[in-house]
Amino acid sequence: MFSNKYVREMKPYPLTSHRAWEREGEEDVLKLDWNEATIAPSPTVISSIVDFLSSGRLNWYPDVNNAELLKELSYYCSIPEKYIQYFASSDSLHEYLAKCFIEVGDRVSIISPTYDNFRATVESCGAIVNYYYLDKSFNFCFENLRDYLNHENPKIVYICNPNNPTGTIYSPEDLEALAKEFINILFIVDEAYFEFAKVTCKDLVLSCGNLVICRTFSKAFALASFRVGYAIASTDIIETITKIRNPKNISTLSQIAAISALQDSAYMEEYVKQVLTAKKYFDQELSGLGLECFGNGGNFTLVKVQQELKKKLIDYLQSKNIFVRDYGHVNGMENYLRITIGTLDQMKPVLTCIAKFIKENE
Amino acid sequence: MFSNKYVREMKPYPLTSHRAWEREGEEDVLKLDWNEATIAPSPTVISSIVDFLSSGRLNWYPDVNNAELLKELSYYCSIPEKYIQYFASSDSLHEYLAKCFIEVGDRVSIISPTYDNFRATVESCGAIVNYYYLDKSFNFCFENLRDYLNHENPKIVYICNPNNPTGTIYSPEDLEALAKEFINILFIVDEAYFEFAKVTCKDLVLSCGNLVICRTFSKAFALASFRVGYAIASTDIIETITKIRNPKNISTLSQIAAISALQDSAYMEEYVKQVLTAKKYFDQELSGLGLECFGNGGNFTLVKVQQELKKKLIDYLQSKNIFVRDYGHVNGMENYLRITIGTLDQMKPVLTCIAKFIKENE
Repeated sequence: MFSNKYVREMKPYPLTSHRAWEREGEEDVLKLDWNEATIAPSPTVISSIVDFLSSGRLNWYPDVNNAELLKELSYYCSIPEKYIQYFASSDSLHEYLAKCFIEVGDRVSIISPTYDNFRATVESCGAIVNYYYLDKSFNFCFENLRDYLNHENPKIVYICNPNNPTGTIYSPEDLEALAKEFINILFIVDEAYFEFAKVTCKDLVLSCGNLVICRTFSKAFALASFRVGYAIASTDIIETITKIRNPKNISTLSQIAAISALQDSAYMEEYVKQVLTAKKYFDQELSGLGLECFGNGGNFTLVKVQQELKKKLIDYLQSKNIFVRDYGHVNGMENYLRITIGTLDQMKPVLTCIAKFIKENE
Repeated sequence: MFSNKYVREMKPYPLTSHRAWEREGEEDVLKLDWNEATIAPSPTVISSIVDFLSSGRLNWYPDVNNAELLKELSYYCSIPEKYIQYFASSDSLHEYLAKCFIEVGDRVSIISPTYDNFRATVESCGAIVNYYYLDKSFNFCFENLRDYLNHENPKIVYICNPNNPTGTIYSPEDLEALAKEFINILFIVDEAYFEFAKVTCKDLVLSCGNLVICRTFSKAFALASFRVGYAIASTDIIETITKIRNPKNISTLSQIAAISALQDSAYMEEYVKQVLTAKKYFDQELSGLGLECFGNGGNFTLVKVQQELKKKLIDYLQSKNIFVRDYGHVNGMENYLRITIGTLDQMKPVLTCIAKFIKENE
């Protein structure tokens, strides 16, 4: 009875099953449903935590202004510290952005299909959401988007680059042109998969005050369990979100994990290389099986499979301890599933299973 | 330029210095400024984490519905699971409560002086804050508060029980009478220090739909670095906050730490016993030195010291690696400081320092 109308009316972000977690103890589980890394984080992450457990102060609140983490982020991003702030996950950053910039009734555009949590986050703040849809091959037409923005005139646009789950890549030049033409629109660009696509528009924040880049340690850095993300934006925006962010809320062990991961970025780069090799092979083989694959941007592949067959395939893979993501919860995506890409050794058995399934269901 | 008016105008929650963190490596630092536990958490917390580091999946997102944690919380609180939800800190719970229940322009009352983060949280959602002040001895008059609520008619009231920093305790009977008389007001009762005062109104949630209890693992359980808190409330309220809460945001190691701490609650109870013994002794000795102390509710003592002398005392204690909390940032509290209470062995040297300082400054 006390809650806001828009909280009552919003549809929560749908979570997939927990069956992978229930099988966590089993060695051969392949969790390919949330685009997490498929390998453990750098050994330096684990040794730094073990060190802290033996001598650190677990009973103290976390450092509220971790200068070392900011310094490492600045070095990794090649951008001065004043353009960066870290958060307890990129989801948490998105929540603070919405709290800062959205007033009830504000118009927000989301380039779709994409990560559905953008919608849930802004709806829970009372925004009115409108969608700009990529074309049938999930491509993006610059002129078309310009026309849309001119017509729709939203306060905020969400762009995921590379886009999840379609792998669509937006060039920095296109994003620069948009940000500089539409100076009254705030562009929130989620670069969760930046390490895989190696495309970024982060340097734009030096000259554009209407752009926020959101990044995470949950993908290439293999730190999803720790919840750390960061923003790159103009000093004005960084100061505003810093004002309302709760600086106590990034747990000490997560801060340590992020610093260690950044200090061993070579480990992450080697993993990314392996994933890109595996993805190329995986997509080729799937095509060979007659399946249509989309996207080159991230550690995932979007696969088109007719709805009924898709359900059977997902169940079949689960019976083999392989978990993939059904995209049926998103409008127009009823015939798609998304498979996270791991290393070649991990993806070969997945291909074998899919090939067997296809043969049996021809 | 894009941010909400109320975000632009709000005053952030002021954080104390980081000097204690800078001296983290030093054995003899006594951090008595944030009411954290002064000892490490239960050894089972550390061993569970070490176990997970060797065999768990740090690269996976955290469990989004930790049945074991809910079960342990339910057992610890003696209340069915459906009345409980856990969050990435009690501060995070407060942020979700504000997001759920506050619309721009809503009137919110805070019983003061208290934890200033309540104000920062609701102001950042556009609430108009009004204060009900405890009397000069920080006592609370039931009839007086009733009159205030009848006159002010807020949508939400924040009560910290026992109150930080005054130690004021509200009886469950008084809170029940208020909740049942003012059925259109939502009472948010923060029980961060419940383990020390052993006073709770949690059973009220079975019959009252206008009450939320907020608790934390950061005080008696010694898990401040991990950020875990939980709500106890009617099923209606639990369902609403569950809908907008991000269930991925409680880090895996924090979930493990909370479960282990609950499974060894005897460790926490022994620490609480030590703190209560130390507090009795500490307050008596301070009174013997001519200092006025307030509050019996938590692991802290509020001490009255004239403003100029207070600054000198805080600096003197810092020079001895003892950190206490200046309350000068809160209106009307210019002559107060708050000292967290640890064990008797930890508090005796603090008394020695204060006695020496008082003698030298007579």
